[in-house]
Amino acid sequence: MSSNKETEENVEFVPKFDNNGLIPAIAQDATTGQILMVAYMNREALDRTIQTRRATYYSRSRKALWKKGEESGHAQQVEQILVDCDQDCLILKVNVDAGQCHVGYQSCFYRALKDGTDNKLEFIAEKVYDPKEAYKK
Amino acid sequence: MSSNKETEENVEFVPKFDNNGLIPAIAQDATTGQILMVAYMNREALDRTIQTRRATYYSRSRKALWKKGEESGHAQQVEQILVDCDQDCLILKVNVDAGQCHVGYQSCFYRALKDGTDNKLEFIAEKVYDPKEAYKK
Repeated sequence: MSSNKETEENVEFVPKFDNNGLIPAIAQDATTGQILMVAYMNREALDRTIQTRRATYYSRSRKALWKKGEESGHAQQVEQILVDCDQDCLILKVNVDAGQCHVGYQSCFYRALKDGTDNKLEFIAEKVYDPKEAYKK
Repeated sequence: MSSNKETEENVEFVPKFDNNGLIPAIAQDATTGQILMVAYMNREALDRTIQTRRATYYSRSRKALWKKGEESGHAQQVEQILVDCDQDCLILKVNVDAGQCHVGYQSCFYRALKDGTDNKLEFIAEKVYDPKEAYKK
């Protein structure tokens, strides 16, 4: 309890990484408030992000650091890093150009559960770039 | 690859629960866009949320369903549920009253990394209620 209180009320940044050494990070557009994507960071990705002010994540599928935009060109300039009460989740307030999702949308959250159903989605956004063009390099 | 494409481009809602049977869910204020908290859902919590339109999570510490607001009174009315490209993360667009964080703040993200440091936080919000009052019941 005392250790919880310390985590919640003090000014020491002690992010809690999970058993895999990862912490989830939400990229949120600093201007519009739109949630763009959720990815994971290990300690090294977080350190690089703090040092460079450009978002670097850890790709769980590729098991490697992933400097956002290194392939697609759609990088994230980090304006502010927020942490939650128990310090097991981060928000990156970012400045971006168009198209943060590899599928071609501005945000990875381009579908919503359809009203009155529990298993059907509807698209709520239009693609803003052609991923075939962006990733052909 | 084909299965990825299907997950990304179609309208079947097939949320991916992790090895512990959980999926992260971000509660975002439907009006202001503020990210309020991040919690986890198991299948039952998600079903109840869809059915009741009130956010129910799974508490990893208590290992039990957690109907948001059942103790504090600060419930979340769910307006929309969004899912990301690979369907392993949800956003709940919610309507709320004051004070979504158990520490007393509107949002759990009430601290930011201080400019020029990698280990010091600064408070970026004021408390909006007294948790001692809300949880004394």
